Formats: sequence, structure tokens, C-alpha cells
Amino acid sequence: MFGKSNIQPETCHNAGTNWAIQYNSVSRRDCLLLAVGALQMDLLHTRLEAQFRETREEIAGLIRDHGDLAIGSVHLAQLFGGMRGLRALVCDTSTVDPELGLAIRGLPIKQLHDRCPEEIFWLLLTSFLPDDRELSFLRERLHDLRTLPGYIAPLLDGMPADTHPMTMFNAAVLTMQRESHMATRYRTLPRELLWTAALEDALEMFARLPVLAAEVYRRRYGLPTVEEPDEMDWTRDFAMRLLGRNDAGFEELLRSYVVVQSDHESGNVFAFSAHITGSTHADPYYACSAGLNGLAGHIHGLAAQDFMRFLFDLQQDLPSGVDQAFLRQILRDRLASGRVIPGFGHAVLRLQDPRFEILSSRASALFAGEPLFLLARQVYQAGTQVLVEHGRARNPYPNVDAITGVVLNLSGIRELEFYTVLFGVSLSIGMLAQYVISRGIGSPIVRPRSLSLSEVRAMLPQS
Amino acid sequence: MFGKSNIQPETCHNAGTNWAIQYNSVSRRDCLLLAVGALQMDLLHTRLEAQFRETREEIAGLIRDHGDLAIGSVHLAQLFGGMRGLRALVCDTSTVDPELGLAIRGLPIKQLHDRCPEEIFWLLLTSFLPDDRELSFLRERLHDLRTLPGYIAPLLDGMPADTHPMTMFNAAVLTMQRESHMATRYRTLPRELLWTAALEDALEMFARLPVLAAEVYRRRYGLPTVEEPDEMDWTRDFAMRLLGRNDAGFEELLRSYVVVQSDHESGNVFAFSAHITGSTHADPYYACSAGLNGLAGHIHGLAAQDFMRFLFDLQQDLPSGVDQAFLRQILRDRLASGRVIPGFGHAVLRLQDPRFEILSSRASALFAGEPLFLLARQVYQAGTQVLVEHGRARNPYPNVDAITGVVLNLSGIRELEFYTVLFGVSLSIGMLAQYVISRGIGSPIVRPRSLSLSEVRAMLPQS
Repeated sequence: MFGKSNIQPETCHNAGTNWAIQYNSVSRRDCLLLAVGALQMDLLHTRLEAQFRETREEIAGLIRDHGDLAIGSVHLAQLFGGMRGLRALVCDTSTVDPELGLAIRGLPIKQLHDRCPEEIFWLLLTSFLPDDRELSFLRERLHDLRTLPGYIAPLLDGMPADTHPMTMFNAAVLTMQRESHMATRYRTLPRELLWTAALEDALEMFARLPVLAAEVYRRRYGLPTVEEPDEMDWTRDFAMRLLGRNDAGFEELLRSYVVVQSDHESGNVFAFSAHITGSTHADPYYACSAGLNGLAGHIHGLAAQDFMRFLFDLQQDLPSGVDQAFLRQILRDRLASGRVIPGFGHAVLRLQDPRFEILSSRASALFAGEPLFLLARQVYQAGTQVLVEHGRARNPYPNVDAITGVVLNLSGIRELEFYTVLFGVSLSIGMLAQYVISRGIGSPIVRPRSLSLSEVRAMLPQS
Repeated sequence: MFGKSNIQPETCHNAGTNWAIQYNSVSRRDCLLLAVGALQMDLLHTRLEAQFRETREEIAGLIRDHGDLAIGSVHLAQLFGGMRGLRALVCDTSTVDPELGLAIRGLPIKQLHDRCPEEIFWLLLTSFLPDDRELSFLRERLHDLRTLPGYIAPLLDGMPADTHPMTMFNAAVLTMQRESHMATRYRTLPRELLWTAALEDALEMFARLPVLAAEVYRRRYGLPTVEEPDEMDWTRDFAMRLLGRNDAGFEELLRSYVVVQSDHESGNVFAFSAHITGSTHADPYYACSAGLNGLAGHIHGLAAQDFMRFLFDLQQDLPSGVDQAFLRQILRDRLASGRVIPGFGHAVLRLQDPRFEILSSRASALFAGEPLFLLARQVYQAGTQVLVEHGRARNPYPNVDAITGVVLNLSGIRELEFYTVLFGVSLSIGMLAQYVISRGIGSPIVRPRSLSLSEVRAMLPQS
């Protein structure tokens, strides 16, 4: 179904007397595939061009007719509070509703968790799920683009052996900036067509980031290199590269893991940092690298590994099995000493995160009897009880960071500090779609202004 | 005056019979220097700790008493316009006044252009210019921290020879993340003392970024490696490493170049991207790398090289010397065709940028007779005339990007794409001070929210 388009006359020459017939048949099939591919790419371009033009015109009209409309206030608390809750960005790829959670292009994530990352990328970019033909085209394209540049392996090998895997991953992303079509064509391409070069970059990065992540994983932890799986399915290929073997259960989990974390509107640090960087017309490699830098922060992308550390500590404290009352007391003591319970609460959501529910139900099917999963479930229950009785958490439910580490660990990916790399691969899907769209609709450079503390003091009401 | 503190008993052993006396005398001197250094470091810590505590308390009080105070509105145009002009950040290191231009800690940049980068870093960080003792301490400290980790040279050599110098520089900054004190000590250090580890990182990065930039410069362009200059003065050392020789004129220029571009409040993409990244407690290496990614954008850090390209094109069009009327016509035609005049205008300033004036007057003293500088001056004059007659530019004066490339080029740094690396070294000084301060005052994670286009439509007045 997803035949590979490989025009390699050399291999045909090696086939001896049969080469002419083989070459002919390969050539005909490849011509057909190339033609279908080119047609699909043209259709995608045409559709995006129309969407971008329409959006650009709508935005110009909105600014012309309602530019001065005040759509909200900046409060002093937000000035000092990291713009928390300040609605100052526009993003159409996804929304995060306090009651409903993540929706991609209006579709709640619970309706999408059986989809694959390729479908989600297409949905994010075009606002439509791909049909079979479009999905085949995208998969074939990604498959053909998957090979990493030759300088990446020596680059990774040249870094000190104890370098953080996120640093290795990000430095390699940055070094691949050399491949950027947008950087190469920037001075010759009209501004309104920058997105076409950005789309080429986006496809290459979408294809290569999982390959790079798996390379980092296996090199960093001294695991034997994996033979190229040559799989059309993006997730299956990724799963095999990570584990070094075929594991249908992990593949399914990884698919959901990536899909539920593929986009989260544009105000989270990863997306925002990438957006700001891209707004200067720095190419998608620079933008993705900027996002990954933020994701490497302890109170952003490292939350999943922090929950796991907490869980392992509990496992040591409770060696003879889980006592629910004792567990609640541990959590109460933690809150009383001014610390948080890792893996609970959410900046925006007020109900249970559907992303948690999706991964948790997948985990139940695979790991129901595993002691670590049993303990995690006890913590989910006890944590919510204690937070409800404590009465101050606006959201007392476990969040997505309380389950992602558990499923990765139980699947055999045990190196906690690597989790943020996988998170980065997932988020980059939304970031790449947002990048192409931002260039397509001509998003201007981001440039808020700052106040000094004395300017703030001068704004206070006279008392 | 700025003696180096080198405790190396091995060299003393080699000195034969005299070693005891030598060792004793070296040891006494070093002990004294170490004691003075430790005392100065203690004094710096004590001062910063008091400042940070005071600021934290003031901010807590402001949020408690006035958190709901609306200090401004978000307008629809800002939502789509990259938050332009939206006052939503607090930054005390510097301000950019539309009439007065850049002021660092309240001191106009024109009062500071004879200072050195070490003094500016101290001023940014502490809000005081250092006295002689403090300056000696800082210089000695930076001098001792200057050596790059051993893996950097092979890392740079391993990248493809045509990699963009900014990519090489940034990938190396990122790889040095392994050295971060903040990353190493994050789990053991109380939150309110994170800044102490960040300060160690900041000093190491301030010391090493120019060394790295010079390494990239000389390797990338195949220039012979420079012998370690072993200079106490940060700029002199940097200038010698870049040019491979002592050049007092370039040193003076470079000092001003770095000082005038060392900070520019926190809303420009470089600073903002670094701030967002740091707000997740990602360490200063990650934050600086995020800032550099944004600076690599064509409409941000690449403006100086764009002005130079424009100037070189003019030089080709006007081979027989400069005709002012013809030049004005070229600029008018450019505006008429919808293009901008590179190197003119400013997002915030409404008068001539004092940073331009400082560098321009330094250049006049050194390069008055150079044809390229003569042409540049003609462009400054003609550009302003044409923009004034055009009537639509809110600031018709040449900006700092119209002079930085000229002075670098005339000093012998002719590789245009390298200019953004030097810009990054300069801006990182303010970024590092802002980073330490942000951790010191406990700045929370940045997290604005986004609206979808349909949510914006729903906010429009019913017509």
C-alpha cells in the first residue's frame, strides 16, 4: 500500500541481464508514484495558500476595523506573574478549555486518540483530517526524508558521554539548521511564499526528529544500534528504533503518547519560545531548538521525570506494599511542609485532564498487574482525596505528567532524563504546524515592552 | 595590578633548591589574593541577597495590595501584532525611552560608552558601577574562568565547514550546558538560592562566550589560531583573539560596540526568548541558546549584515563616486516599490538612536577617509531626507544596525554572517544579568494564553 519510491539505477545494473525490464518496471511505477506525490503536494499547497490568503485578509480587516478594540486588561499581578492567563496571542491549531481540555482544530482529544501523529500533523496544518490518499502521500514523503545527515552521528559521539540527552538532542537539531530550505531560500523567496520553504523544513524535521531521538537514546545509554526498520508508519518506525525490537503494545502507547502531547495552544513555554523565535524569520530548526531549550526547564518539560522520582521514593518508603491511609498521611505531610504533590493540578484545566485519562486507560490494559502501576493508581486516588480535603487546589486531579513517565518506564524506557526528549518530539509536531501557519499568515515579530519597577510604582493609585 | 592567582606547586617543585622559598612566597601572595577574591564574592552575594529580598517583598506587597489593578489594555491589533507595545513585563536592568533611548539602571548610554563591558555587567546586576577593587575582582575572576572545555574545539571541527557561524556558536553554547552549576545543583539548592548557582554560570559564560566566538570566527574562516593573549581586560583579550593581533583602535571600537548593545530591556526577541526559557528554571546555557536562536532571525539580529549588503550593492551601482541626488532617487524608488531602507527607523525610539551616535563618532575618528564610511554617511543623510519627505516614518534616522556592520567591516571583520555572533556576545551580558536577577526575585514561569480566531470573532461588537 505504501510503496517506497526509490529510483536507484545502480541496483538495477547489479541485477544483471534482467536490468532493462526491472529498470523499466521500477521506472514506470516510480514515475506514477512521483506523479501522485507531486499532485498531492500541489493540492496541499493550493489548499494552504487559499487558507492563508483568506486568514491574512480576515486579520487585515479585523485590524483595520477593530484594531483599537480592547479585548482585555493587563493586571499588575500578570505583569509580575509571567503574563499568567493574559490573552495576548492568537492560535488556531488547538485550544485548551478549562472544562473540556485540549481540542485540536475543534476536535476534543478524546475523539483523536486512536489517530496517528501523521494524521494529527495534517489536521493541525490544514484543519482537516487526511483521507487515505493524503495519509499515504504524507507517510511516503516522511519515509523518504527520514535519513539523518552524515555529520550527526560523529557529532553525538564527540560530546562528553555524560551530556544530558536533551542537550545532545537539541545541539543536533541546531546543527541540522544547515539543511534548512527556508534559510537557503530566504533572500530569493517572496515573503508571502516563505511558508512553502518552511513546509519543506517541517516535513524533514517531522521525519527526522524521532530518528534523532532514538539515536540519542541508544548512543547515550550505550545500547546496540538498531538496524533501519524501513517502516512506513511513523510511530512503528520510532518505537522499533527506540526499543530495538517490534513491540505492538509499546507502539500503541507511543502513538497515544505523541498524539495527546502534540499541541497545546501557543502560550506554553515550548510553543511560545518557538513562536517568538520564528517571528524573527529564524528558520524552523532555530525555532524548534528555542522551544526545546524551554522544555529542558525543571518546572516545564521535566515534570514527568519528577513524578517518577516521587513514585520511586514512595516505593522505597513503602516496601511492604501500599497502605492507602499511610500514603494519604505522607501526602498531607508534604503539603503541610509547603511542598506540592508532583503530577497534580493544571495551569488551565479545572477538570480531570482527558490526556491523563487516555494514557491511563491504555496503561490499564497493558500493565494492570504491575506493582509500579498499582502504586501510581493509589497515588492518583490518595492525591485527589488529600487535595480535595486540603481545599486549596483549583484542580485536584492527576495531570498528564503523572502518567507519561509511568507508561514509558513500564514499556522499558527507564532513563528518566530522556523523557523530556520524547516530550519534545511530540510537541514539535504542533510547533512545526504552527510555524508554517505563522509564516503563511504573515505573523509579525513579537515585541512587547517592559516597565521598570519605578514606572510600576508611579502607576499605583495615590493613597 | 591584576595579578593572576595560579596555585601550581608542580612549577615550584621544578624550581629546584629554591622551591621552598618560592612556594612560600607564591603561596602567601595567592592566599592573599584568594582571600580578597572570596571576600569580594561574599560582599557581592550579601549585596545581591539584600536587593533580591527587598524586591521580592515589594513585589509580594504590590501583588497583595494592587494585584487586580489594570495597568493597561490588550488591543485587538496587539493580539495579531506580536504584542507590539504591550506593556506586560517588568525589567529593571535597562529602559528604552522613545525620546532618550537606552538607559542602563537609569544612566543614559551616552554617559556609559567609555565604560568597559565588565563595568556594565556589574552595573546591570547590582545597579551600581563597580569601584576599582570590585572591577579588579571581576576581571581576575573572568580571566581565571576563560578556558573553554576541551570538547568544544573537536565539536566545532566536526561540523560541516559551511555551517552558519551562528549555528556553530549556539550549538557550542548549548553543548557547554554540561558545565552548568545551576543544573548540577538544582535538586539540592533551596529555590531562593538558585541565583547563586546561576551567578556562577553567568560569570563563566561572560568569560567564555568571547573566547568561543573568536574560536568560531578563526576556525570557520580558516584563519590561523591565535596564541592565548592572557589579558586581564575582557575587551582587549577578545579583540586580540578575533584579529590575531593587538589593535588599539579596534579594541576601543569593540568596547563601545559591546557596551551599547549589552542590554535593551526585556521585550526584544533575544531577551524575551531567554527570559521565557529561564522562567522554567532551564539553566543560563539553555536560556542564552534560546535567545541566540531568535537573534539568528532575519528581521532581528541579521539587520546589520542586511545594511552592509545594501551598502555594497550601492557601491556597485555608484562606481564613480557618490552623487547625493542620484542616491536620494535610488532610495525614493526603493520606498515607492514597497521596500524599506535598511538601517533606518526603530520600534520604540522617535529620535536619533544615541547608540548610533556613539559608534558613528568613534568611526569618524578612525575611518574618516575610508570610501565605505563616506558612502555610509551619504546614505545616513540621504535616507533621513527621503524618509522625512516621504512623511510616513515615525523615526527617519539611521539606527544602530546602520553603523555596527560598517565599523566591524572597516576594522577587518569582513564576514557579514559572523556579525550576529558578535551581537549575541554583547546581548548575552544583559541576558546573564537579567537571568540572575529573575531567579533572585523568583520570577514565575511565563504562560500567557491564546485565543482562537473564532473566539476573537465572538468578541467583536454586534453590528
